[in-house]
Amino acid sequence: MAKGITSRTENYAQWYNDIVLKAELAENSGVRGCMVIKPYGYAIWEKMKAQLDQMFKDTGHSNAYFPLFIPKSYFTKEANHVDGFAKECAVVTHYRLKNTDEGEIVVDEKARLEEELVVRPTSETIIWSTYKKWIQSYRDLPILVNQWANVVRWEMRTRLFLRTAEFLWQEGHTAHATSAEALEETRKMLDVYATFAEEWMGVPVIKGAKTESERFAGALDTLSIEAMMQDGRALQAGTSHFLGQNFAKAFDVTFTDQTGKEEHVWASSWGVSTRLMGALIMAHSDDAGLVLPPKLAPIQVVIIPIYKSDEQLQTISEKVHVIINRLRNQNISVKYDDRTTHRPGHKFAEYELKGVPLRLAIGMRDIANGEVEVARRDTLEKKIYPVDGIEQTIAKLLEEIQTQIYRKALEFRKAHTHTADSYEEFKRIIKEESGFVYAHWDGTPETEAKIQEETKATIRNIPFDVPQEPGVCMVTGKPSPHRVLFAKAY
Amino acid sequence: MAKGITSRTENYAQWYNDIVLKAELAENSGVRGCMVIKPYGYAIWEKMKAQLDQMFKDTGHSNAYFPLFIPKSYFTKEANHVDGFAKECAVVTHYRLKNTDEGEIVVDEKARLEEELVVRPTSETIIWSTYKKWIQSYRDLPILVNQWANVVRWEMRTRLFLRTAEFLWQEGHTAHATSAEALEETRKMLDVYATFAEEWMGVPVIKGAKTESERFAGALDTLSIEAMMQDGRALQAGTSHFLGQNFAKAFDVTFTDQTGKEEHVWASSWGVSTRLMGALIMAHSDDAGLVLPPKLAPIQVVIIPIYKSDEQLQTISEKVHVIINRLRNQNISVKYDDRTTHRPGHKFAEYELKGVPLRLAIGMRDIANGEVEVARRDTLEKKIYPVDGIEQTIAKLLEEIQTQIYRKALEFRKAHTHTADSYEEFKRIIKEESGFVYAHWDGTPETEAKIQEETKATIRNIPFDVPQEPGVCMVTGKPSPHRVLFAKAY
Repeated sequence: MAKGITSRTENYAQWYNDIVLKAELAENSGVRGCMVIKPYGYAIWEKMKAQLDQMFKDTGHSNAYFPLFIPKSYFTKEANHVDGFAKECAVVTHYRLKNTDEGEIVVDEKARLEEELVVRPTSETIIWSTYKKWIQSYRDLPILVNQWANVVRWEMRTRLFLRTAEFLWQEGHTAHATSAEALEETRKMLDVYATFAEEWMGVPVIKGAKTESERFAGALDTLSIEAMMQDGRALQAGTSHFLGQNFAKAFDVTFTDQTGKEEHVWASSWGVSTRLMGALIMAHSDDAGLVLPPKLAPIQVVIIPIYKSDEQLQTISEKVHVIINRLRNQNISVKYDDRTTHRPGHKFAEYELKGVPLRLAIGMRDIANGEVEVARRDTLEKKIYPVDGIEQTIAKLLEEIQTQIYRKALEFRKAHTHTADSYEEFKRIIKEESGFVYAHWDGTPETEAKIQEETKATIRNIPFDVPQEPGVCMVTGKPSPHRVLFAKAY
Repeated sequence: MAKGITSRTENYAQWYNDIVLKAELAENSGVRGCMVIKPYGYAIWEKMKAQLDQMFKDTGHSNAYFPLFIPKSYFTKEANHVDGFAKECAVVTHYRLKNTDEGEIVVDEKARLEEELVVRPTSETIIWSTYKKWIQSYRDLPILVNQWANVVRWEMRTRLFLRTAEFLWQEGHTAHATSAEALEETRKMLDVYATFAEEWMGVPVIKGAKTESERFAGALDTLSIEAMMQDGRALQAGTSHFLGQNFAKAFDVTFTDQTGKEEHVWASSWGVSTRLMGALIMAHSDDAGLVLPPKLAPIQVVIIPIYKSDEQLQTISEKVHVIINRLRNQNISVKYDDRTTHRPGHKFAEYELKGVPLRLAIGMRDIANGEVEVARRDTLEKKIYPVDGIEQTIAKLLEEIQTQIYRKALEFRKAHTHTADSYEEFKRIIKEESGFVYAHWDGTPETEAKIQEETKATIRNIPFDVPQEPGVCMVTGKPSPHRVLFAKAY
């Protein structure tokens, strides 16, 4: 077990926090609920961003930027929307500080804003107030825009990456001529998120629709991807919303169709955030520290020289630079840690903690034998490989790790997924075994609320690929067309 | 002259605004002083960001992210700093809205923050409060961190890109063991900005030090790059600050050096913002619209088919796709505009307005002749080239345009740069000729203020490469070691 990291079995929440801090991903700031994302954590987020951004562009989207502030009157135009967000809004009321005669610095009451500004918790209202200017005719549609931005939701209980008052995210906001097109977009972007989660983060997810009570405030339908963490809890990793004409009506955004008829515009919005960092950490890491999928690792390979003298170090370094060049030619990111201030054991522990997928150690004997020791972070296995062709070996190993990490998470999810046919059984599983539970539900918010109150488990989503298998609600005995996915969640 | 664009000679300010709106770069939002950056404008900013980010990484910097909000008590710790920024701060005072009994939505007075939060106008204070935790020993230094972020300064008179209440920028914040190292960093990053401005934006700049009264609030020295716009005014395009130990002292950030002695840490900070977009637009554009340097153009080449029937369009499109592939293989970004809803003339005007560096037009006769018509946006010249080897022709033309744009701006600056030896002459030049004026100044803030009051010209900077040429202040007759750079400025 790594120094200073609580084990998962001992205290899962503490283990998570230890990893975030010790791997230098993020830390709390002096501002309540706001985090500092440290360089190593931000480098992982940058890799996520770059890949997501490419996927958005490949599906026809462009980036733009809208104001941080939303006038209160805009914010309140869509009734459900304001109900959903009003209780967690940071509000700007003044635009100046001043010195008092006592030399204290205070808010200048003379600089009170006529209308308060809400710091965006999400941007539907400011964006739809803008789209009103951009859309007149069907020729102006679709609008496929994304924004990378910071948002603020005043959460009372915060946890690094998982729930913070300020977080970074992207929010796609699209406008369409038809309901069908907006629905297609909603679903397409959920698929993009699922592909990203599975192929890049190595995290298997379940795609489905949220229940009515869990919908985004202002949406007609909310789709989500749900991932399982190593404590069996679910984490909602991304959402995509079909907004119908709600925001178009709130901001009076209409278009003239090809027949000359005026109609309100149809909309979708979709987002993922730095919360994905939490999912990435919790899905793969172990008691020795972070485990990263190679595709998102800022450093894929670290090389550590094992030497007893300056001359040895020099001899080793010469060989290492040849290896580095060969790896970089394969677009593999490599770090050579030849610091003389730290011992190899210290370095090994550091890169284990930071989840670097492969560690190469090279000493004088290895050079004599034309060999190198390669340690895999995911399995902690060590193996000797010839230096000859090392770039192919490493490339193959990185691919293997990427696949293996995903497979392991998928196996874990399978092993912790249950079916419950009675409420008693459901309650026992939730209490004793944790994990995902497929069970029948009568489709009412009342039953959903009762289950949540009594078990703390919630309906994560109504999975798209769940078989049509009529049954009866485990609580009320009323008919149910198919099972839905329950779990305790982050 | 393009439809809807005021000419530069008629009204320069209006011309600028017309370009920003008509080329779809940005527009005003419903939030006072805040702009919406539209997809085409944002695509240019993304290219700027990508290049600057690479240059920061190549010089050893990492990105990180710090909170949007700064507690008032942090903000007030460095006396000069708060004096400089207090008058333009957006202040968050509450964290909740609520419904009144009348159904109105108002700020919930029960949710007043114990300590007000300032929306960051710049991040020295929140970052140095964090560095206190990161720095103990000389081994923790240097810290070379950059942040891409939004900031807010409550400006009363705003202009798209040039001066907005919210803007996007990067801010580098570095920590060093010695004064010399911090100074070296300050200068190195100014050089990075100058290289970017000249080689990427095609905008020549003058590097120098700001006078004391123009220094960043909290800095011991502020360096700037100054560019000339087409109306002869200067635009400060980037600044780099030597902060000495001011912020380290305000936040008590010390380190133990190699001899075991404790000392305060030395600092630099440096930034460029979306203001660069304003500089880019004003430096090169003409009365027909935007002119973009190829290196920052989201679309480098647009291809427009000239046809009279669907069959002709099909024949042309087949040839065009061959050309597109050959251009893309050279990493040239190409758009093929085969919209049948718009006539060629309309398309020509549109891409002229949007500053696309090269426009290719291809009709049936061109195909028969194995030729293509190429129009340069910067010179508006048209020329026929053989399709054979067109990818080399285009690559060469793009390079030529990049060079030519820079050279033209440099010639313009030379033609509008003056030397004044008396205050009378100085006043006449500023009033009648505009442009840059090199003149002697006695080094006092009083004289500087007097000149500004009487002429509206300010000292832009004390250029690094100005010759040591003793003289006397044009206003007071006191001795001056060398001339300084004056201009009216944005």
